[in-house]
Amino acid sequence: MRQSHLFTKTRKSAPKDEVAKNAQLLIRAGYIHKEMAGVYAYLPLGLRVVENIKKIVREEMNKIGGQEIIMTALQRKELWEKTKRWSDDVVDVWFKSTLKAGGEVGFGWSHEEPIAEMMKNYISSFRDLPIFVYQFQTKLRNELRAKSGIMRGREFVMKDMYSFCLTETDHTKFYNQTIEAYKRVYERLGIGDDTFVTFASGGAFTQFSHEFQTVVETGEDTIYINREKGIAVNEEVLNDETLKSLNITRDELEGVKTAEVGNIFNFGTQKSEELGLRYKNDKGEEIPVWMGSYGIGITRLMGLLVEKFADTKGIVWSKEVSPYPVHLISISNGNTDVVKESERIYELLLENGIEALYDDRDVRAGEKFADSDLIGIPTRFIVSEKTMAQGAVEAVSRVDGVTSLVPESGIIEYLGRKE
Amino acid sequence: MRQSHLFTKTRKSAPKDEVAKNAQLLIRAGYIHKEMAGVYAYLPLGLRVVENIKKIVREEMNKIGGQEIIMTALQRKELWEKTKRWSDDVVDVWFKSTLKAGGEVGFGWSHEEPIAEMMKNYISSFRDLPIFVYQFQTKLRNELRAKSGIMRGREFVMKDMYSFCLTETDHTKFYNQTIEAYKRVYERLGIGDDTFVTFASGGAFTQFSHEFQTVVETGEDTIYINREKGIAVNEEVLNDETLKSLNITRDELEGVKTAEVGNIFNFGTQKSEELGLRYKNDKGEEIPVWMGSYGIGITRLMGLLVEKFADTKGIVWSKEVSPYPVHLISISNGNTDVVKESERIYELLLENGIEALYDDRDVRAGEKFADSDLIGIPTRFIVSEKTMAQGAVEAVSRVDGVTSLVPESGIIEYLGRKE
Repeated sequence: MRQSHLFTKTRKSAPKDEVAKNAQLLIRAGYIHKEMAGVYAYLPLGLRVVENIKKIVREEMNKIGGQEIIMTALQRKELWEKTKRWSDDVVDVWFKSTLKAGGEVGFGWSHEEPIAEMMKNYISSFRDLPIFVYQFQTKLRNELRAKSGIMRGREFVMKDMYSFCLTETDHTKFYNQTIEAYKRVYERLGIGDDTFVTFASGGAFTQFSHEFQTVVETGEDTIYINREKGIAVNEEVLNDETLKSLNITRDELEGVKTAEVGNIFNFGTQKSEELGLRYKNDKGEEIPVWMGSYGIGITRLMGLLVEKFADTKGIVWSKEVSPYPVHLISISNGNTDVVKESERIYELLLENGIEALYDDRDVRAGEKFADSDLIGIPTRFIVSEKTMAQGAVEAVSRVDGVTSLVPESGIIEYLGRKE
Repeated sequence: MRQSHLFTKTRKSAPKDEVAKNAQLLIRAGYIHKEMAGVYAYLPLGLRVVENIKKIVREEMNKIGGQEIIMTALQRKELWEKTKRWSDDVVDVWFKSTLKAGGEVGFGWSHEEPIAEMMKNYISSFRDLPIFVYQFQTKLRNELRAKSGIMRGREFVMKDMYSFCLTETDHTKFYNQTIEAYKRVYERLGIGDDTFVTFASGGAFTQFSHEFQTVVETGEDTIYINREKGIAVNEEVLNDETLKSLNITRDELEGVKTAEVGNIFNFGTQKSEELGLRYKNDKGEEIPVWMGSYGIGITRLMGLLVEKFADTKGIVWSKEVSPYPVHLISISNGNTDVVKESERIYELLLENGIEALYDDRDVRAGEKFADSDLIGIPTRFIVSEKTMAQGAVEAVSRVDGVTSLVPESGIIEYLGRKE
């Protein structure tokens, strides 16, 4: 992508009403646009990051047998009444509206009910199970406050997966497979070491639920961790009973600020019973299905990566999520040979299937470097008279500023290396 | 994808309240699920078709310089009031709700206003133009009636593109480039010969707008065409004045039923003036931007392809949009050698980057063939004792039932052939 064609421009400052660091940086760098509090559009660079995160999550969900679908924003009142979750007294984030044809509709803040209801069409016999489905859905939540940028919005993208199993044994097996799949997701996003499977408050069915919490200074949550023992407890369930059941003392735990990057729920057979989702076993008896739900906030993760890795100069992406693998910067100072060489390297990258963000603009070097720091692509290639004299490009790492000369014959290999 | 793992199953009949042929077939074959009238979820097979259509449209929009973004469902009242389109008396398809934090919000039935408003952040000088952006957005429209399946829904996916140009000349040039890009889209979808650029009623700014209308028996619209002269006129503007301006007589036109598959609007500078979207020219004067909008209903196209090409046995997809390029069907009748051979061919396809839908289920041949007809994948490969004896698979074309024996060494090449 030629930067001269990219319609977004960097900005010196974010809108005054934007208080979250993630949104401030993402707006300034041209990744997102603020439509209203908690509601953001994703611009070309931002959409690429979202898609890169989705790709990682999709691959890991497919590996454990997930089948991708997409449910609907519009929700039937009658369905949510069955599980007593239509009332605003029970669910306080509903957006609701009225159909011109008559009757109320809701907008999907969650999709457990419609997915379980739909499955009644596809589950009748024990032979139909297990089933694992997931979607990337735009959730709409009528949050009273929305001050965390894209980390807690009124409109955001979530991956939600649902499991439907025959027995508790099958259910527990898949639940644990999902924990491992989630760990792989966070590992690939570069936050594996700082993300903890955390005991949190359970639902009607279980003592605990599991959250995935990532250590980050600006996190909304506090958890208590013991890195050696690999134990993490949300403060909401930090009490004597919990400590005893985990065989750990309060002294062994360290309090840290975190952001929730995933959660998994064990519904047992509760929701299936409420909605009448049953299968016939080999004796013809009707048995309620075991259900679980598994969420990862895609746009929230994007915000977290910004909060966690940004420095004073701007955003720092990892290779896996960066909108482009390399930022090619031409410093020509009016020398047409440098322009030609830059174009040649841009084409060379394209021919090798590598799409660079290519700063071909006619602006000062200082402005290009400042913009590049703000945008945060992990590798920068600089082409100038100086680098041409050495038959190379200068590679600069965004994370630590380390520079090296890469001969032209080696640039494809350089970009393909493991970090 | 192993059909034994696919959670959807085919159904003998669609829900009784479903009157549209496209939705009846898509529900029966397991592509979609009806959430409520005009609101459909897309299941694994259906989502693949949607993504295939999006891919074609995306490629053609990128070719003419479109930059992909994604706007928001939630819409600010204040913004739409500026263009006098907030009122239900003016726009009768709004879904509206109330923010917990106070104030009304709307749900995006269109995105011209927010995109034009956003562009004020990125357009200030003549140097910033032209800009072409597009999105694949889930539109929410509070339609009074919704009886056309996925061809006119309350929730549907649309590609909408917007152009921002300096001058009428630049604007007209891009407008015409988009017409050509749209023609390529319909060509690739197999409806090129039956899709007409049609004169329709204009807006405040122009005498005519342009629609793309595809001939289909169950279409909601009627247009009048002359295939030789390549002229098409929507009945809403078929009058003496129009005929005169097109230099054609009524006798030369044939009336046909059609469905609208795309539309393009010339806003001129009207919307820019309403919203204050201006650039400074080289003399420092503030000039309103020329705007156009360009829509293609993605899910509507999917419905149209079903309506247009389905036969008495079920859906018929083209290679470009089919959820899988080939339906591999194992007819083992308990012969484990046939099972092994089928598995081997499934793996061979995967190794060559071809994902088949693989009917590995333990059901009768007749049921497999009936399901395959309903699902509508263009090429079927049958593996049986008979085909094994000949060292081949039997290829069956869904569209005309023509069969041929393809030696195993030739199956990759067979799938890669031009239709």
